[in-house]
Amino acid sequence: MMENTYEGYKAHLQKIAHLNSTMALLSWDQETNMPKKGAAIRAQQLSTLSTMVHELFTDLRFENLVNHLLAKSCFGFKEMRNLQLTKESIEENKKLNSDFIKRAAIARSEAFQSWEQARREERFSVFIPSLQKIVDLEKEKAELLGYNDHPYDALLNLYEKDSTVHQLKQVFTQVKNHIVPFIQEISANEQVDDSFLYQYYNKDAQFDFSLELLNFMGYDFDAGRQDLSTHPFTINFSAHDVRLTTRVNEYNLSEVIWSTIHEGGHGLYEQGLPINHYGLPSGEYVSLGIHESQSRIWENNIGRALPWWKFLYPKLQKVFPEQLGDVSLDQFYKAINKVQPSLIRTSADELTYHVHVMIRFEIECSLMEGVIEVTDLEEVWNEKYQDYLGVTPDKPTEGILQDIHWSHGSLGYFPTYSVGSFYAAQLYAQAEKDIPNLDEKLAQGKTNDFLTLMRKKIHQYGKLYPADQLVERFSGESLNIKYFMDYVHEKYLKIYGF
Amino acid sequence: MMENTYEGYKAHLQKIAHLNSTMALLSWDQETNMPKKGAAIRAQQLSTLSTMVHELFTDLRFENLVNHLLAKSCFGFKEMRNLQLTKESIEENKKLNSDFIKRAAIARSEAFQSWEQARREERFSVFIPSLQKIVDLEKEKAELLGYNDHPYDALLNLYEKDSTVHQLKQVFTQVKNHIVPFIQEISANEQVDDSFLYQYYNKDAQFDFSLELLNFMGYDFDAGRQDLSTHPFTINFSAHDVRLTTRVNEYNLSEVIWSTIHEGGHGLYEQGLPINHYGLPSGEYVSLGIHESQSRIWENNIGRALPWWKFLYPKLQKVFPEQLGDVSLDQFYKAINKVQPSLIRTSADELTYHVHVMIRFEIECSLMEGVIEVTDLEEVWNEKYQDYLGVTPDKPTEGILQDIHWSHGSLGYFPTYSVGSFYAAQLYAQAEKDIPNLDEKLAQGKTNDFLTLMRKKIHQYGKLYPADQLVERFSGESLNIKYFMDYVHEKYLKIYGF
Repeated sequence: MMENTYEGYKAHLQKIAHLNSTMALLSWDQETNMPKKGAAIRAQQLSTLSTMVHELFTDLRFENLVNHLLAKSCFGFKEMRNLQLTKESIEENKKLNSDFIKRAAIARSEAFQSWEQARREERFSVFIPSLQKIVDLEKEKAELLGYNDHPYDALLNLYEKDSTVHQLKQVFTQVKNHIVPFIQEISANEQVDDSFLYQYYNKDAQFDFSLELLNFMGYDFDAGRQDLSTHPFTINFSAHDVRLTTRVNEYNLSEVIWSTIHEGGHGLYEQGLPINHYGLPSGEYVSLGIHESQSRIWENNIGRALPWWKFLYPKLQKVFPEQLGDVSLDQFYKAINKVQPSLIRTSADELTYHVHVMIRFEIECSLMEGVIEVTDLEEVWNEKYQDYLGVTPDKPTEGILQDIHWSHGSLGYFPTYSVGSFYAAQLYAQAEKDIPNLDEKLAQGKTNDFLTLMRKKIHQYGKLYPADQLVERFSGESLNIKYFMDYVHEKYLKIYGF
Repeated sequence: MMENTYEGYKAHLQKIAHLNSTMALLSWDQETNMPKKGAAIRAQQLSTLSTMVHELFTDLRFENLVNHLLAKSCFGFKEMRNLQLTKESIEENKKLNSDFIKRAAIARSEAFQSWEQARREERFSVFIPSLQKIVDLEKEKAELLGYNDHPYDALLNLYEKDSTVHQLKQVFTQVKNHIVPFIQEISANEQVDDSFLYQYYNKDAQFDFSLELLNFMGYDFDAGRQDLSTHPFTINFSAHDVRLTTRVNEYNLSEVIWSTIHEGGHGLYEQGLPINHYGLPSGEYVSLGIHESQSRIWENNIGRALPWWKFLYPKLQKVFPEQLGDVSLDQFYKAINKVQPSLIRTSADELTYHVHVMIRFEIECSLMEGVIEVTDLEEVWNEKYQDYLGVTPDKPTEGILQDIHWSHGSLGYFPTYSVGSFYAAQLYAQAEKDIPNLDEKLAQGKTNDFLTLMRKKIHQYGKLYPADQLVERFSGESLNIKYFMDYVHEKYLKIYGF
């Protein structure tokens, strides 16, 4: 029985949230604990629950209830915003009929398997047929969802609401015109020595240090935990149970540190969402771009900056006296900020990273326009890497097959990574204005003022304001890449001394 | 859409199984990994899923489908048996209306909390009001379910089908008449020294040894895993994902060894159920008594016997040379079989254990008859412990408050522990006949013939035959406590040499 009130609406959404968060646990367990024979039935469990969620969300009685409540217009801002966002989601769900959803699920499952096979065999051609299906389905999805200017807009909008090709082209034009030449300028200088990061570092000691890092950030271990997995990720079952995973490489100290800080930033956002709005739009993260801003602001603006390492580096040296005892803070700081064009997006420095994203954006855009074909992708990819970064992959796993996203049918996802970093620079610039002596506080290990500011200005609102508006309310203007450009110029000019 | 065929019936049951196994994961995670703030929403997730299961199971279309298929009578034995068992479950579910289920769930939740509080305060009186509600509800449940002779029969039947007060009184009369005096006889002899089991044993080394034990038993780690938890348990999401937990006490080596072997036995049964019958009665364990027989047969008939320790003890000595280097196999064997009346059921030896169960059976029986009242329970409990075992608890957590079962509303559960042990002795006696030189094989660490026999005679059948019939098909007769009596007499006369 669905009660014909706002409470009834809330209860129905919470029921959906219980199923969604249960699915999240099934996925978390799959990555961290599940024995391998459990995979087949795990897939069926997930499929059963996801069908149930779809049924609950598209239940006609629920739609009628939402419309009924919206028509009453006796609610406050929060309630109205929730109802409107739910109505939009229902409309979106209705546009993707169950036949399409089923076909897409099958295609994704096939694509993931053939992507893995292609990686094992180092042959992109193995992946082509199922990637073609994915691209066709994404084109179909764009038509089903509808768009104004560009079919890619419909997909971009799924991950970052109101994001458009038009807007992102402006953003990435700046990447091309300013970041690409800046990287070339840096590369012309003497290179930084970071070899000491690649010595042997004990696994357990690394993991223990990563837990300390999370403690310093203010991550609440009563409402979360950290485990190991092949690919680090953050997953939440509610603001009171947010789990992180990290990765430890015994011959690369960087991996654990920045994957932990990155996921920690995601985790702090999820822990900061209002628990009493659990299940409602006002209790959910606003967009992937903002989510990524919260991870990047910790990973880069704080985690690769000098102040915090003034505090942390002596602690790290104590953990690894043999490896770091003779390495000065200045050497360490330069090493963790080394800029070097490379092949793999996920291990790129914070400057070249956006060139990786730009390449994917350009490719996806052209694919959606039909200007290039799936069969051309490997060639196009390699050309762009040569043109923009001056590197060419030796094998597909270092190039076109490196990312999982396309096998999941997630076209339109990549740009949120860059948008997140650009938001992060903008938010951090504002935080420096709002928090007196922020650098000194960080240098004393005091992160609480910063976290409190993010909680107050970003986390607590959930989806109450659209992403861009949320940033504008805090920083006085909507997305402006200038902050990122200023930040990287100042930083790298100092480090590379030119 | 439910298809009007046996396949449609199977699909519906599998959907229910996906939800049930997902709930099992939610519970497992709660015991092993969940951060403490996650508890509130976890309870809501479980409640949402359990309501959905109830709805699916009592869906009128499903009932009609089952009746329709049963009427067709064109199916083989397996299909008919599945349909009949499902019909019985539907009838049972219908008898417990949703109002009753809701009231019972609330009462259980309250009772669990007040049980915990009573334990903290060491006052049984704190638990009395909510235990009274539980008992009233159990009486109501018995009336709703119906019975022939005794209201307690209705409850016993929930855990061990067709189990009755009449049958169990016969069983426990033998416990009273034969085991109780036998314990007294043993106690009159010189006591065995087991003090070396209570030295310091390193936690990690204990856990590693427990994994070895599971390997020797034939437990499949590709279809399961073992973790730590406060109370050891086995939980399964399918035959391909069966998880165990164990407990390590650094000053009591016995805990990890026998809790691991015990749960390992449960786990082997679950791993041996036919995966292609997942969700159907033919893919599920037949009864709690049989389940317990599979854990006890490993824990006691194999795990506390000399042959296997001939193989294992040198390995254990290698792990703990300081503690066990000077302890002979004979000393060790005697120590792990020490019989001593004590207060706590879960740590009792395999002889006094059944007196603990008998006391609970007598109390539950009297409660259901209305012969004793909840307010009398502590006194009755203490008197019985004095009468039968000659011990009296100093505080309620060592007496009336030690078990969680009543707070869960599980009256009728305890007897399955004894029935399981008695089944185990009977099955083991038959295994000795069926497997030539079983003792020698175990002494060489070869457990495979034994596991294969259990797979063939018990595991593969799921619920296809009722428990007692399953045992009869294998051993030629239904439950007969004589096998247990013979086993313990032979064993303890040798150990205590009288």
